[in-house]
Amino acid sequence: MDLWRDLGLAGKRAIIVHQDDLGYTEAQNRAYLSLGLPTGSVMMPAQWAPQIRQGDLGVHLTLTSEWEHPRLRPLTGGASLRDPAGYFWPTLEAAWQHMAADEARLEMRAQIEAALQMGLDITHIDTHMGTVMRPDLAQAYTQLALEYRLPAFLPADLSHTNLPDFFRAALEELLSQVSLPKFGVVDGYFVPHTERTAWYVDTLSELGPGVYHLIHHAAVPTPEGQALPDWEGRRADLEALQDPAVRRVLSEFTLLTYRDVRDGLRRYV
Amino acid sequence: MDLWRDLGLAGKRAIIVHQDDLGYTEAQNRAYLSLGLPTGSVMMPAQWAPQIRQGDLGVHLTLTSEWEHPRLRPLTGGASLRDPAGYFWPTLEAAWQHMAADEARLEMRAQIEAALQMGLDITHIDTHMGTVMRPDLAQAYTQLALEYRLPAFLPADLSHTNLPDFFRAALEELLSQVSLPKFGVVDGYFVPHTERTAWYVDTLSELGPGVYHLIHHAAVPTPEGQALPDWEGRRADLEALQDPAVRRVLSEFTLLTYRDVRDGLRRYV
Repeated sequence: MDLWRDLGLAGKRAIIVHQDDLGYTEAQNRAYLSLGLPTGSVMMPAQWAPQIRQGDLGVHLTLTSEWEHPRLRPLTGGASLRDPAGYFWPTLEAAWQHMAADEARLEMRAQIEAALQMGLDITHIDTHMGTVMRPDLAQAYTQLALEYRLPAFLPADLSHTNLPDFFRAALEELLSQVSLPKFGVVDGYFVPHTERTAWYVDTLSELGPGVYHLIHHAAVPTPEGQALPDWEGRRADLEALQDPAVRRVLSEFTLLTYRDVRDGLRRYV
Repeated sequence: MDLWRDLGLAGKRAIIVHQDDLGYTEAQNRAYLSLGLPTGSVMMPAQWAPQIRQGDLGVHLTLTSEWEHPRLRPLTGGASLRDPAGYFWPTLEAAWQHMAADEARLEMRAQIEAALQMGLDITHIDTHMGTVMRPDLAQAYTQLALEYRLPAFLPADLSHTNLPDFFRAALEELLSQVSLPKFGVVDGYFVPHTERTAWYVDTLSELGPGVYHLIHHAAVPTPEGQALPDWEGRRADLEALQDPAVRRVLSEFTLLTYRDVRDGLRRYV
């Protein structure tokens, strides 16, 4: 597979600017609509999902719900997916410890099917909080991508991730074997919000040729948006992506969509 | 049962000021917190439910989801409870037509259990859009109330409701037989929002002795709140209940809680 060459990207710098967590709150959907950037992924268990249907949209496979509120529940009945109150587990560690692989796989499939039923022209899948990185779930995740003939967000390199050491070898083997495209990752989530814009400018300026997936979490700072514990970072992403300096460095990339990647991939899978 | 006399309400005017739809949006929870009135009921399938746990709180049994977004899904797997995209049916008529009684009963029970698991000290149950008024569901609803030893919101008189004629006789019989308290109903939902405050003043002023359940749907007019199709009425309820004239006529009632009613009821059931 030489997907990047097929897409005319050999030797170029290309980027997908990807908004995570669509559908979760009105504030995140509003940020998506105001940014005018096409790509993001929708949390199907969240109640604002039906508001966002037009764009370059994927399914943000969700197996955790990290805040006290708003809080999400699985679409399927798997007991291992839920805390005692019936919500998704709040942490990666609790989810990894409890989730039965077959129940997690059914839930991921149900979220993809729910998006199709809602009428979404799904262009990709990705993962909330990286919960699918438990190696058996990562395998299910890539199998679902291949079954639905969709790109899955996969990093080209695990060295910058915070994965437990005992996951790393199995994941590296999986990534080396699976016939799906991988991406350089630009993720400013843990960059202090006051430095976010400068970080984007610096980081994007320094990237060499390659195909990158930039993760952002923009939200507008309405009272609902400000009820999210990490709202300052979400506002910082919104402001950064509206900032002329960031727009200028982004304009030096080929702005890629997952629809392009999906349609290219479908010549292979 | 002479519950109202036990509660010292014989010959008095008593009222429960009840906020419907808590947990649905941040805007509705914010209105609850700002009004300082204790009573309301929480939609357990909604993602902001965990934000509201302290007060005189019931479970707002939900079997319909009327807007395109935000949109809610059942907690249980019953196929008859869902539209093709997996959400609750959008209209009363569709829900009444499709819902299997056993699946609806399981869903109502699951919502009560979810509230208990969330740590809510449930004081009552009531119903979103009156969906439980299909006679077989109304029977399940009152049975659940008796099983959990909770008051259920039940009207003393069906003459002001918009029920289909073929439901009325069965419901009247049920209401006449069930050993649960019934309430006079004060419901301004269909009063034009520009007339809401005056309507409350006039309506409340004219009420004679009795025990009343006032239904309101307050929400703050944040962008999220304004995304609700009926937000002007919700803002009107918020403003009316903050209005000194409405507060004054309310002060001429005994302000009752469902906790009082529940604790009184538990001497009988």
